[in-house]
Amino acid sequence: MSDLAEAPGLLDRALRRVTALWRDMAGGTSDAEGFAARMRTCLEARGGEVSARARAAGLAEAYLATDEAGRLDFLRDLASFDSDAEAVRAAWEKVATAADTAARAAAKAQLRRALEPPRLKLLTQFTAIPDGVKFVVDLRADLLRRMDGAPMLQALEGDVRSLLAAWFDVGFLELRRIDWTSSAALLEKLVHYEAVHRIRTWRDLKNRLDSDRRCYAFFHPRMPAEPLIFVEVALVKGLADNVQGLLDEKAPVLDPKKADTAIFYSINNCQRGLDGISFGNFLIKRVVSELSAEFPNLKQFATLSPMPGFRHWLEERIAAQDLALITEEEGGALRLTAPPDLALPAPATEGGVVTAREASVELPVATLRRVLGRRSLARDEAVTRLLDPILARAAARYLLAEGSRSNPKRARDPVAHFHLSNGARVERLNPRGDTSEKGWRESAGMMVNYLYDPAKIEDYHEDYAGEGKRAASSAVKKLAKGFV
Amino acid sequence: MSDLAEAPGLLDRALRRVTALWRDMAGGTSDAEGFAARMRTCLEARGGEVSARARAAGLAEAYLATDEAGRLDFLRDLASFDSDAEAVRAAWEKVATAADTAARAAAKAQLRRALEPPRLKLLTQFTAIPDGVKFVVDLRADLLRRMDGAPMLQALEGDVRSLLAAWFDVGFLELRRIDWTSSAALLEKLVHYEAVHRIRTWRDLKNRLDSDRRCYAFFHPRMPAEPLIFVEVALVKGLADNVQGLLDEKAPVLDPKKADTAIFYSINNCQRGLDGISFGNFLIKRVVSELSAEFPNLKQFATLSPMPGFRHWLEERIAAQDLALITEEEGGALRLTAPPDLALPAPATEGGVVTAREASVELPVATLRRVLGRRSLARDEAVTRLLDPILARAAARYLLAEGSRSNPKRARDPVAHFHLSNGARVERLNPRGDTSEKGWRESAGMMVNYLYDPAKIEDYHEDYAGEGKRAASSAVKKLAKGFV
Amino acid sequence: MSDLAEAPGLLDRALRRVTALWRDMAGGTSDAEGFAARMRTCLEARGGEVSARARAAGLAEAYLATDEAGRLDFLRDLASFDSDAEAVRAAWEKVATAADTAARAAAKAQLRRALEPPRLKLLTQFTAIPDGVKFVVDLRADLLRRMDGAPMLQALEGDVRSLLAAWFDVGFLELRRIDWTSSAALLEKLVHYEAVHRIRTWRDLKNRLDSDRRCYAFFHPRMPAEPLIFVEVALVKGLADNVQGLLDEKAPVLDPKKADTAIFYSINNCQRGLDGISFGNFLIKRVVSELSAEFPNLKQFATLSPMPGFRHWLEERIAAQDLALITEEEGGALRLTAPPDLALPAPATEGGVVTAREASVELPVATLRRVLGRRSLARDEAVTRLLDPILARAAARYLLAEGSRSNPKRARDPVAHFHLSNGARVERLNPRGDTSEKGWRESAGMMVNYLYDPAKIEDYHEDYAGEGKRAASSAVKKLAKGFV
Amino acid sequence: MSDLAEAPGLLDRALRRVTALWRDMAGGTSDAEGFAARMRTCLEARGGEVSARARAAGLAEAYLATDEAGRLDFLRDLASFDSDAEAVRAAWEKVATAADTAARAAAKAQLRRALEPPRLKLLTQFTAIPDGVKFVVDLRADLLRRMDGAPMLQALEGDVRSLLAAWFDVGFLELRRIDWTSSAALLEKLVHYEAVHRIRTWRDLKNRLDSDRRCYAFFHPRMPAEPLIFVEVALVKGLADNVQGLLDEKAPVLDPKKADTAIFYSINNCQRGLDGISFGNFLIKRVVSELSAEFPNLKQFATLSPMPGFRHWLEERIAAQDLALITEEEGGALRLTAPPDLALPAPATEGGVVTAREASVELPVATLRRVLGRRSLARDEAVTRLLDPILARAAARYLLAEGSRSNPKRARDPVAHFHLSNGARVERLNPRGDTSEKGWRESAGMMVNYLYDPAKIEDYHEDYAGEGKRAASSAVKKLAKGFV
Repeated sequence: MSDLAEAPGLLDRALRRVTALWRDMAGGTSDAEGFAARMRTCLEARGGEVSARARAAGLAEAYLATDEAGRLDFLRDLASFDSDAEAVRAAWEKVATAADTAARAAAKAQLRRALEPPRLKLLTQFTAIPDGVKFVVDLRADLLRRMDGAPMLQALEGDVRSLLAAWFDVGFLELRRIDWTSSAALLEKLVHYEAVHRIRTWRDLKNRLDSDRRCYAFFHPRMPAEPLIFVEVALVKGLADNVQGLLDEKAPVLDPKKADTAIFYSINNCQRGLDGISFGNFLIKRVVSELSAEFPNLKQFATLSPMPGFRHWLEERIAAQDLALITEEEGGALRLTAPPDLALPAPATEGGVVTAREASVELPVATLRRVLGRRSLARDEAVTRLLDPILARAAARYLLAEGSRSNPKRARDPVAHFHLSNGARVERLNPRGDTSEKGWRESAGMMVNYLYDPAKIEDYHEDYAGEGKRAASSAVKKLAKGFV
Repeated sequence: MSDLAEAPGLLDRALRRVTALWRDMAGGTSDAEGFAARMRTCLEARGGEVSARARAAGLAEAYLATDEAGRLDFLRDLASFDSDAEAVRAAWEKVATAADTAARAAAKAQLRRALEPPRLKLLTQFTAIPDGVKFVVDLRADLLRRMDGAPMLQALEGDVRSLLAAWFDVGFLELRRIDWTSSAALLEKLVHYEAVHRIRTWRDLKNRLDSDRRCYAFFHPRMPAEPLIFVEVALVKGLADNVQGLLDEKAPVLDPKKADTAIFYSINNCQRGLDGISFGNFLIKRVVSELSAEFPNLKQFATLSPMPGFRHWLEERIAAQDLALITEEEGGALRLTAPPDLALPAPATEGGVVTAREASVELPVATLRRVLGRRSLARDEAVTRLLDPILARAAARYLLAEGSRSNPKRARDPVAHFHLSNGARVERLNPRGDTSEKGWRESAGMMVNYLYDPAKIEDYHEDYAGEGKRAASSAVKKLAKGFV
Repeated sequence: MSDLAEAPGLLDRALRRVTALWRDMAGGTSDAEGFAARMRTCLEARGGEVSARARAAGLAEAYLATDEAGRLDFLRDLASFDSDAEAVRAAWEKVATAADTAARAAAKAQLRRALEPPRLKLLTQFTAIPDGVKFVVDLRADLLRRMDGAPMLQALEGDVRSLLAAWFDVGFLELRRIDWTSSAALLEKLVHYEAVHRIRTWRDLKNRLDSDRRCYAFFHPRMPAEPLIFVEVALVKGLADNVQGLLDEKAPVLDPKKADTAIFYSINNCQRGLDGISFGNFLIKRVVSELSAEFPNLKQFATLSPMPGFRHWLEERIAAQDLALITEEEGGALRLTAPPDLALPAPATEGGVVTAREASVELPVATLRRVLGRRSLARDEAVTRLLDPILARAAARYLLAEGSRSNPKRARDPVAHFHLSNGARVERLNPRGDTSEKGWRESAGMMVNYLYDPAKIEDYHEDYAGEGKRAASSAVKKLAKGFV
Repeated sequence: MSDLAEAPGLLDRALRRVTALWRDMAGGTSDAEGFAARMRTCLEARGGEVSARARAAGLAEAYLATDEAGRLDFLRDLASFDSDAEAVRAAWEKVATAADTAARAAAKAQLRRALEPPRLKLLTQFTAIPDGVKFVVDLRADLLRRMDGAPMLQALEGDVRSLLAAWFDVGFLELRRIDWTSSAALLEKLVHYEAVHRIRTWRDLKNRLDSDRRCYAFFHPRMPAEPLIFVEVALVKGLADNVQGLLDEKAPVLDPKKADTAIFYSINNCQRGLDGISFGNFLIKRVVSELSAEFPNLKQFATLSPMPGFRHWLEERIAAQDLALITEEEGGALRLTAPPDLALPAPATEGGVVTAREASVELPVATLRRVLGRRSLARDEAVTRLLDPILARAAARYLLAEGSRSNPKRARDPVAHFHLSNGARVERLNPRGDTSEKGWRESAGMMVNYLYDPAKIEDYHEDYAGEGKRAASSAVKKLAKGFV
């Protein structure tokens, strides 16, 4: 009870009252009883369905009140309410021997019912508690942490997931804009859930909700105070190439009506218990349509995204003396050379035209390794002049050519996989796009713009989903020349 | 589209914009194509899930725009997306041969997935349209009207029903009070859906929402303008015995704080497409708890209910010369006699004490038949003095002893079955409780109070659900003496 | 108290609680005391301002609870709290003898304070009750009914009026659209307050709130459930010429996006207590701007208005054998002749081009008198062919040439005066524009379109406000030729 | 315009549209014209009242857009629209010579109208702009800063004040609770306006809005995003004696249902432009009644207040070698001695019973002066043991005996005057109740509890308002013995 009482804003007080009113009737099954016995009583629905829900509420409260060990017991007991093997077999027999369409349809329906484990029904009964939906979401988060290979817990987790996937169908979600007039309680959750670019202060937060910024989130009607996923957008001129610039609290505020580009610079899933149930694709496209309606001047929609696996992969490649990174060997030292015609993307302020061009960029591998190890060196212009083209070439290869361990057609970088699946293309690479410690540690400072071009989204999606073909701008393709 | 456009209050305009935005991309599948081809494209999710939903929206709009024949085609096409027999068989084999718990759990999950017909996924995609939930509800209403024994349509109907049962789980519903400050658009729907005691005028409606009345309804968050079920309650002193009295617009308004009894005098399901998905039980108990909190003086919660099958059953019994109705035969004429110690319930105003008592009541069957045929006769006090005890005895028998055709343990009267299942008891019979034409035609004017006693609900429910034992007050039991 | 309790929706419950909490402290002045004594105690603010307000609340409740005679006593007592003659004289002396600007400014401020009658302060204290603003509005309505020439009551009424004029400054009002989703309680008030074209049924009301209709009202933030004034608008093609056509429930609904004209066909003040405090001008112009924003296709904004004094004036003229109405005398009978070049406005469907033209229209005065007395005759086409041009000419004279008793520059017709003051012009006359009994009795069936042309409003207003010049279309001016 | 545009949440967009729509019509008076000419045009209401308001809106925007010098010009021009001396004189003559009551009443009304300066009408017209009420509030704040003894500006300020006093009558205000679910934009304003005990961080703020805290503010319906005054309350056990303890973020949270005391520890006026228009009294009593209703266990309502003038006064007294502070002179050094029976209030935790008692407390004045100059010394227990009783005695004298310069009956301390006027009594003195730098600098660390006892409020108020008698607990009276 106490946990729930701490979140009174979420409570449907009327239902709570029902719970209280009918609790006594639920008698017979005291808290002292084991969880399994209480679960059985709920499933038998003794005294009617309303009473059963009151008992389920009691169970949910007991779960919240118990300790780690108690929760594991609870989950195991719950998992044990599996479908009845004999009933399943019998139902199958009827399917196998059905004489006609009607009989077969009925038998298949019967088989599906027989396969539904009773624990599913119990999970549904938990909706009776005021915060029931959130309870099931958090129960799955607990499961994901605890299941530890146990087959029955895994089966239970699968059931919870399928239940949540139905409840959280995107058609039921509400898109809400979040801004500085939103409640502090909600904004505090943004601060908590933002994991891509940490919100350091309320001033930082306010800057992200300014008039040239937008923040949107999906909510479920039964979890109105809990964002499920949110996206932060900057309205700018041209493709943004640096996240510190975007987040600079002292940067002047642009009149959003003059912006031509919307940059999605942070997308965060908030509920661990909804892992694997995907909203991001829908969120991006809903927000594109909201912004298009509000700002007819917007001409492109793109992200400014990290490459969280890039640095790790790069170090691996270096350690492996990957020849593809090495173009020359001299005096015993590996040297990295960017091809003479390799062009870095110019900064956005120069209008997207490639202007800087290095005839040849060379860097000893030892130096590269040292530079990667010391972020401060990366601020040295002399170093970066050499380093940037090398990193850009490596990044292009990493994004367009590297596959995941389980599936070579799938991009190794998870963020790349997400946007490519959604039909975006790799538009531009931005060395030193994230100069934070985290940006250096994970992405070697590199950030990438994924572009969402409404006219191409379907084709790109199909190409990637089908043949694993990854869409990219010609500039990025050129950078990856030789690898793809 | 036009149908949707007519209900703009229900539209999620943002989603509508998405629909419009991405519609062009859905190209390739024009309206000219057959429904089946378009459904297949949706299911293949070409171009990604967002595009698939846009296409599903197009399909839904096509359904709404087409004629009767077109709709039947649509439903048949939809039904044809059944689960794959071969995949089901293969999945079963794995279940049957699983080596250990883990393998069996995985195989069963696989079998459940194989059994899920693709049409279910399509139904879910319809949530993408603004009014998607209502669309699926209405689609089931269409199905129920049209399916006509066709096995595949029946299978489809079963799928839609299971989907709706999940979506409309009572844990997701919102209880809202409806009163005179509610929107006219909503109140108009009450007028439309009220089928127990027709609302004749706005004045009648206003009277039902006065300060000594309450009206509550369940709503679904995605159908906020559509009541699912509603109940009308009168706050009175003592058990009400006559519905015309309750509905009398000129009756003085009671201070609701002084009421000791809440009378539930009308419960109406509003959505044909939700037939068989039960909310009534929950609604009554939620409202009991709301009212208890608001009015601590309330001491009893009861209904004033019709007996919709009573007259028909009674005429059958008379036609069958049912001896149980006949206690004497004299001069070739059947005579009905109420037992000498039979007591009618006294009117509520006399404080519940039985005062009228007839040593013996006799009425020729021919007269009974004639009286039943002419409502005006039933107003004659001389007639009713004889008739009332006879009807009361017959009604007691009808409620407590008669079973349904398929199950003798289940009360023949559907309203009785509903309340007995919910744990109520038959408390009192009220001859001439409904003097309207409809009341006479269906219930021979008889109304019954079902009493909800929180302390007994669970036991009564169990007794009825288990052994079919029907709870009743001692007065009503006495009336039924000899039959139960 | 009881009156307030009947409108719980309006109550600020918190303030009510304050009232209750501090009431006991207000002791010393029981209900038995005379009103004057209690008023004195309030004004002395014994125990502090909060207590004084609690006592004022008690007084207000006493007023509501007392009978007609008691209310008159209350108002007389209240009126007796006049400014102090001696203090006023002393303050004036200081003004007259002030040595410099600073002293004079201070003295004038002091004089103004001395002139403020204490009753004004008491009226302000009534705002402490939950429905305090409405209380003062209704108190003025009572005053207007009762004051009956008594000088002190008139002075009090003037004070109340000035107070209400400050409170109900148009800058504080909220414009709200009213439609079928508005609360039934509010819509019921529309039915009650609509006096121009009575709303007969809820169906009639619903028709007036359909998608090609608009209704807007002003509200005060402290009287949120009470409309102050409302206007009904029809979105149509061309100038509407007949109000029965507008109100026809069976007429097809126009797509409002296709409308080119907004017709304001009914404006109603709702609060008798706000008589003389004008909102209509602001309401019309606010609604024009709302509609312009919502429907860019609208090209003209006009009214379809009654001429409530026309019939009466016309009968007077006939009785007076007004030669201006009579152009010929023949065989002892007066004959009315419309001038040969007199053209009636063509019906709207013919595109505004004048097509019908009568060389000469003649009608014996006796016939005219008879026809005016029998509405049924006015339906005879042969009669109306003769009658219409005569009535149109008389109406044009009535609107453009006749002055009010007190001021010949002011239009005799009050509706004409209202719209001309607002800067509208008389655009078109519509014989048989209102065929109802009331329309015939008051306006001889004539309706007039006043046109609001944003480009001309200021000039028209100035011309009328300054020289009394009344703006009209050339067609109407032609009709009035010889009179203006 | 720009200032308004920065507060879009406050804008009534519809009115803004009106402004835009009718602006062109306001032609004739360009921005180039002087303010005075434009004001005259507004007052003449050329083109009607709606146009005049549009012009007034233009003027308001010009004021917001201009610089300091421009604003002063504007204010002077506005002030110059004074009442007409001749008209006032003529009106007075009619009053002086009125023949009867009716004539005199009419003449007085006429005189009041003549005295109304036209600038008042212009101020009212500013309500037409979206943020009009706030505009006038801020205009007065400007005036208060700038008027600088100029008589006409002072007269204008007086007019604005009387206008605002009518608009901001407490009967029109809304009490709203502010908590952690309030909008960040609003909470940021709390941070900005809190001047008594600065809010340092969002964590500090959140702590003040925790479940054992309450914050309430008054709002005006036309300034919904701007708090007018707010109060912070702690729900505690016993009288709180130290503000740092109250604000300690790490202190455990009390179950508010168990609190017996509500401590009002910070009250802040937010709008400089409403100086002198008092809400505090009403706010406290409204909040008392809100809290009483929510927490029936609350037994006392008190403040924990600073004594902002105490330190300054004390230094003055020391400098003046005020003999009342000095009880002994020894060896050339002044010595301060607390009387032997002087008792300090015990800490709240000891239940209000006085336990500590010093036979004699002595401190050389030089030491006192040194200690006052160095806050760190005040933390030395040896020092405080001597110092506390001395300061308490001085504080008691300061609160109960010292009068303001202009009025000896009025408490010298402004906070004391506020609470004594409201009917509170000085309940307890708390040396080292505020150990912050500010607390030491202004109040020598002393804080005082004022107690609001509903049963005594009226009497206390009357005693103070009438004879200047200041209510205090017997303990505090004892401390002040010899002075009062």
